[in-house]
Amino acid sequence: MPSLLRKAVAEFIGVAVFVGAIVGVNYNAPVNPLAVPVLAGTLGLMVLLTSDTSGGHLNPAVTLFFAVKRQISWSNALAYFAAQIAGGVLGAFLGGAMHGNYNLQVNTAIIGKGELLSEVIATAGLVWLIGYLASRDRGNIIPFVVAAWIFAAGSFTGSGAAANPAVTIGRMFSFAAPIGVEQGMYFILAQVLGVLVAVVALMFVTPVAKAKKKAKK
Amino acid sequence: MPSLLRKAVAEFIGVAVFVGAIVGVNYNAPVNPLAVPVLAGTLGLMVLLTSDTSGGHLNPAVTLFFAVKRQISWSNALAYFAAQIAGGVLGAFLGGAMHGNYNLQVNTAIIGKGELLSEVIATAGLVWLIGYLASRDRGNIIPFVVAAWIFAAGSFTGSGAAANPAVTIGRMFSFAAPIGVEQGMYFILAQVLGVLVAVVALMFVTPVAKAKKKAKK
Amino acid sequence: MPSLLRKAVAEFIGVAVFVGAIVGVNYNAPVNPLAVPVLAGTLGLMVLLTSDTSGGHLNPAVTLFFAVKRQISWSNALAYFAAQIAGGVLGAFLGGAMHGNYNLQVNTAIIGKGELLSEVIATAGLVWLIGYLASRDRGNIIPFVVAAWIFAAGSFTGSGAAANPAVTIGRMFSFAAPIGVEQGMYFILAQVLGVLVAVVALMFVTPVAKAKKKAKK
Amino acid sequence: MPSLLRKAVAEFIGVAVFVGAIVGVNYNAPVNPLAVPVLAGTLGLMVLLTSDTSGGHLNPAVTLFFAVKRQISWSNALAYFAAQIAGGVLGAFLGGAMHGNYNLQVNTAIIGKGELLSEVIATAGLVWLIGYLASRDRGNIIPFVVAAWIFAAGSFTGSGAAANPAVTIGRMFSFAAPIGVEQGMYFILAQVLGVLVAVVALMFVTPVAKAKKKAKK
Repeated sequence: MPSLLRKAVAEFIGVAVFVGAIVGVNYNAPVNPLAVPVLAGTLGLMVLLTSDTSGGHLNPAVTLFFAVKRQISWSNALAYFAAQIAGGVLGAFLGGAMHGNYNLQVNTAIIGKGELLSEVIATAGLVWLIGYLASRDRGNIIPFVVAAWIFAAGSFTGSGAAANPAVTIGRMFSFAAPIGVEQGMYFILAQVLGVLVAVVALMFVTPVAKAKKKAKK
Repeated sequence: MPSLLRKAVAEFIGVAVFVGAIVGVNYNAPVNPLAVPVLAGTLGLMVLLTSDTSGGHLNPAVTLFFAVKRQISWSNALAYFAAQIAGGVLGAFLGGAMHGNYNLQVNTAIIGKGELLSEVIATAGLVWLIGYLASRDRGNIIPFVVAAWIFAAGSFTGSGAAANPAVTIGRMFSFAAPIGVEQGMYFILAQVLGVLVAVVALMFVTPVAKAKKKAKK
Repeated sequence: MPSLLRKAVAEFIGVAVFVGAIVGVNYNAPVNPLAVPVLAGTLGLMVLLTSDTSGGHLNPAVTLFFAVKRQISWSNALAYFAAQIAGGVLGAFLGGAMHGNYNLQVNTAIIGKGELLSEVIATAGLVWLIGYLASRDRGNIIPFVVAAWIFAAGSFTGSGAAANPAVTIGRMFSFAAPIGVEQGMYFILAQVLGVLVAVVALMFVTPVAKAKKKAKK
Repeated sequence: MPSLLRKAVAEFIGVAVFVGAIVGVNYNAPVNPLAVPVLAGTLGLMVLLTSDTSGGHLNPAVTLFFAVKRQISWSNALAYFAAQIAGGVLGAFLGGAMHGNYNLQVNTAIIGKGELLSEVIATAGLVWLIGYLASRDRGNIIPFVVAAWIFAAGSFTGSGAAANPAVTIGRMFSFAAPIGVEQGMYFILAQVLGVLVAVVALMFVTPVAKAKKKAKK
């Protein structure tokens, strides 16, 4: 089994590439209609690449969900959080550097409308889908489903569906895809609330059928 | 097995998220070329998420098809219809709320040209594909096929391919993706006709081969 | 096994829906950047829907290939050709009718540049991919691969990659996606040449490995 | 087993079609928002088509990786390099010819910003993903993953993610998708560096678990 350090490095690199893509795509075409699918695809590939090392969380909201479900210890979850957030900040830098901009900044921008409800829904949907598939032994399609959901929610929400505290923090410091520090804090609260919604939905709306549970024992 | 209530809640939430996406995506970009694939993707994911709880119908036309095929009782079908329609109205509200607009309205808009033929074809194709795959034990790819068909038919028809009475009713009350109440009634009639076309096509054009039927007994 | 009539009806409907989509999508947005993927997706779905009835050819070039390979008799192939061409003409009508236009016309338009080389490459690639997958028992992914190739070749060729004589003939009579009758004849010649290229490529560049052939016997 | 000549021809044709698509798509729409996914799809299909003949490298960077991993001999790798580069130049010609332009030229254009870091990241990600999947016996999804990564990296990097020396060389001579000869040399150096990054990442970040390795023996 990979050591915790190796897992943390995988999470760190995966988030860095994803946030690098978020920031980098904005340099090529500020109104590129394909920006959202590009980012969805990048995230899906990074989840795939890190899945059998770290579980491919790449998102503190996902790690929080698995910690609540006791599928990762809280001490390991803390290491994941740190790696993911550090990856988000590195990604904010790399995204610019791939376009010849080597600076970071502290943002104060305010984006979106109805954005807190948007983040609750975007995060709840993401975590519900992941938890649903993980509990049915269909983890192999999680990378594709995560990509599809981020593509969808990134396009229909008022916030653009960060749905990820590490991405939110990385973007606080980016030039090309900014979220203000203060607004970002509210985003993260909404994302945590979304995780709770997903936990409840998995228990009461789409629980694993009892017969199947027994069969697995 | 999940209770009928749980199934109805799954249908309710699935339709609400789908209609919320239909309405929400229009706030971000009224002429977003990706609006149709976004919605197709959202529907596919919701079908996937609810498939092993309620069967992932999320559409009274699909429920009607399975009731005609006696794969769901008529009393359960009525509960599905109610849940789907209520989900459609909630979705019309959520789609606006995710962009800071908390109002609903009664629409009178008239959209499309050749729209009744369009709805017949869009619904017949959708239900035919679902019935074809369900009868071949290939239900696992239904979420992706539904998404692809809605993407295609949403782009080549004159009506935008609602192909779904619950969506049609929800949109009667939405700000951002309106269908007029009166026109919507004709849409629903055309959608019911599309279900009948699909039933006939499955019986006479793509029936399950007899040898395979025997093998299953 | 389905009768020849049933197979012909499946081919007829499949081509009609595909050509209906080609024509219909042009009414919604003459420069819709998603027109090509919409059509690719429609074709993929129709191939899937008709695959276990007629084999899902939906293209005289594909039927010609399987006739040359002796996997369909020449008399059945003639019935397929007739059904496919009739489907193409019906589709040209339906595509307009879905947008309130009930007329057909005889076209004289000339489209594209370098279009004959384009049709050879587009058809050769399509048939090579289908023949390659069919010979490796990977027929289940043909619908998706056909969609992806038509999406790609439709975008990089000078002709738009009809790659299909039935589509070419249907479009000779459509309002919204015209090919001139005379130019269309040259398209069809180029498409037949493309089938020959694919036959040669399958024999000499990507033959089935002999060990595998034996194992199948 | 196919002879080395057959493998080289497969690599030659695969690269020629891919580079032909890169050049050809620029004639249809110089600012086509779908150009990158078109090319990603073309590459994925060519990898699929050549996978069981030549391994579907279609990229000297990929061949270099497998040579370093001793999964292809260095002498065979040299034959692959020659075939891939010749395919790149033929593709540059075909891409124009499909649009009635039968000329090549020697380019001096300079494209992108931060382009060397971009090529390192784009190539490292591509080769890492391929090596990761190949080492887990998941080679069957490589064509789709390669397509997704090229779609993503082509959109978020400052260089457009050639990530392929044969493509880089072909484009040095194309009209419609030019890279200058001198800049191209630096691209190729960056791509080789990307291969090294991928080799290191596979060894230290996502190695195959030891238990699994044993099980395979």
